[in-house]
Amino acid sequence: MRGVVMHSAGDVRVEDRTDPKIVEPTDAVIRLTATCICGSDLWPYRGVVDVDRQAMGHEYVGVVEEVGAEVKNVKVGDFVVGSFVISDNTCEICQAGYQSQCVQRQFADQVVGSQAERARIPLADGTLVATPGQPERELIPSLLAASDVLGTGWYGAVAAQVGPGKTVAVVGDGAVGLMAILAAKQVGAERIMAMSRHPERQRLARYYGATDIVEERGDEGVAKIKELTGGLGAHSVVEAVGTQEAFMQAVGATRGGGHMGFVGVNYDVQIPGIDLFFAGIHAEGGPAPVRRFLPELIRKIWNREIDPGKVFDLTLPLDQAAEGYEAMDERRATKVLLTV
Amino acid sequence: MRGVVMHSAGDVRVEDRTDPKIVEPTDAVIRLTATCICGSDLWPYRGVVDVDRQAMGHEYVGVVEEVGAEVKNVKVGDFVVGSFVISDNTCEICQAGYQSQCVQRQFADQVVGSQAERARIPLADGTLVATPGQPERELIPSLLAASDVLGTGWYGAVAAQVGPGKTVAVVGDGAVGLMAILAAKQVGAERIMAMSRHPERQRLARYYGATDIVEERGDEGVAKIKELTGGLGAHSVVEAVGTQEAFMQAVGATRGGGHMGFVGVNYDVQIPGIDLFFAGIHAEGGPAPVRRFLPELIRKIWNREIDPGKVFDLTLPLDQAAEGYEAMDERRATKVLLTV
Repeated sequence: MRGVVMHSAGDVRVEDRTDPKIVEPTDAVIRLTATCICGSDLWPYRGVVDVDRQAMGHEYVGVVEEVGAEVKNVKVGDFVVGSFVISDNTCEICQAGYQSQCVQRQFADQVVGSQAERARIPLADGTLVATPGQPERELIPSLLAASDVLGTGWYGAVAAQVGPGKTVAVVGDGAVGLMAILAAKQVGAERIMAMSRHPERQRLARYYGATDIVEERGDEGVAKIKELTGGLGAHSVVEAVGTQEAFMQAVGATRGGGHMGFVGVNYDVQIPGIDLFFAGIHAEGGPAPVRRFLPELIRKIWNREIDPGKVFDLTLPLDQAAEGYEAMDERRATKVLLTV
Repeated sequence: MRGVVMHSAGDVRVEDRTDPKIVEPTDAVIRLTATCICGSDLWPYRGVVDVDRQAMGHEYVGVVEEVGAEVKNVKVGDFVVGSFVISDNTCEICQAGYQSQCVQRQFADQVVGSQAERARIPLADGTLVATPGQPERELIPSLLAASDVLGTGWYGAVAAQVGPGKTVAVVGDGAVGLMAILAAKQVGAERIMAMSRHPERQRLARYYGATDIVEERGDEGVAKIKELTGGLGAHSVVEAVGTQEAFMQAVGATRGGGHMGFVGVNYDVQIPGIDLFFAGIHAEGGPAPVRRFLPELIRKIWNREIDPGKVFDLTLPLDQAAEGYEAMDERRATKVLLTV
């Protein structure tokens, strides 16, 4: 089958890869309908983390082709959405809603390689969720978004305890930040302040529910959020960038006793303990437990209540994956969908 | 009046200080019954932070001698307990339970100087809580503990979401750590693991409710907590030391999706963002909103349900404050009470 392999930083090729097959009785093999390129795929692309002929991809939707003997929750022919973290969904940690910390967790990055025609999904019963039927073609981008960016943005909003009547600031206007805005709107936030400098993304932010756009960054950004919230700071802040500046901006924008959710952090971020201490906030973050939210997110997409698929602003066939990486690296695209 | 002044690092003197008087109509002046020395008083004592003839002390119980024209909630003759953070208890942040982030907050450290015969307490209505009557002498140490260490340890447990059926690890066996153990026991924790190496404090930890003592530190300490919790880590971890090692030990000991409360951080602590991220936990911390808990803590002390006063293992008259500082600095005492 055809699949993406990153040979080294910046060297992305689509080539023949071994066809996946059932290895464990808990596996499923799926035929991909669509997959995409993640912001985190740019880390190896840019040489921030090492890479050596890595099969790429951890976001996926597709049709089940084969299941192992122990798989019960999905069957051949089901259209499925999976999380970027493989989980059993039965251990104590999963049952508490933290499937991304599952005792059997594996990162799809390392074991799936979903930028391909087919993929083996371990722990299929715990990881995959079937849609109610075969989806209309127009729903595919939204279902694919649920696999990572939507689930991650949604988790950011949940971690920041967004809810009715709350003021919310979202740091970052990438795909995840935009999805956090969508989530904040869905759960009834009163005011949603998007921290964004890109006109195109500001438009999308407003489309998804932002009530205010804040272009200032750093201390000025914090001051602006305070100004918009009676001097107190936002009840809820979602950090969706991952840099040092963005992290501390989010800490500063959260009111005392408020909640900050963070859903991605660069390797070089160092949080001064004393600043976090005097801020007096709640901070919750980590790889998003997307699996927790998948049933609800699929239902909302199926019922046309949300259309997260709009975050994909470039669609290419799998064979042109290299062009997709380049476009995201050069910020010509927010998020690239690859059709299979 | 007599009061403690720290002239420079290590130079503590008890000398004549100006008698406090009402400055603002929201002030009260109290006659101290007892006060004490805090672990944080050792920072300037050890030269970690600058000090120049500072009036010391932020923990206090005593009798109201005079009130400003606008004070309504306490009256002359009331026996009162106050928080180490001055707060109005009426602003939106206070009403949300975060009085230590009050829009009018002042740190008693800087404006009260309670290691003295008398003290001016700003925002008396929001800061002070009167006891139901004049307390028995034996209750004084416990009421004094409520002013900071008990309230802080209690907040650590609340921030770590300690509750019935939960497993709890407490990093640190100082006064605050011991109070976190007391709090964990009070709110019904199932298992309370005290991380302690001092035999004397281990005994007190068990007295207050610890079910397990863990002497290992750092990665070994984390491994031990995991071993005691089926490999998962504790539901709730209270960090009550404030060093880099202790902070990361607390992060590591918390299960994925679990809660960590931290109630003090040294100035040099730097938290690697990526470690906090992959831990996937909730972290809440800051100067404790002691005022939130004071009514409940006073009630429990008054009813003899708890006896936090046992954390004071050295009692000296105010005039011997210098000896008290020395004893705490040399770890001959956990917590020193000064009688006035």
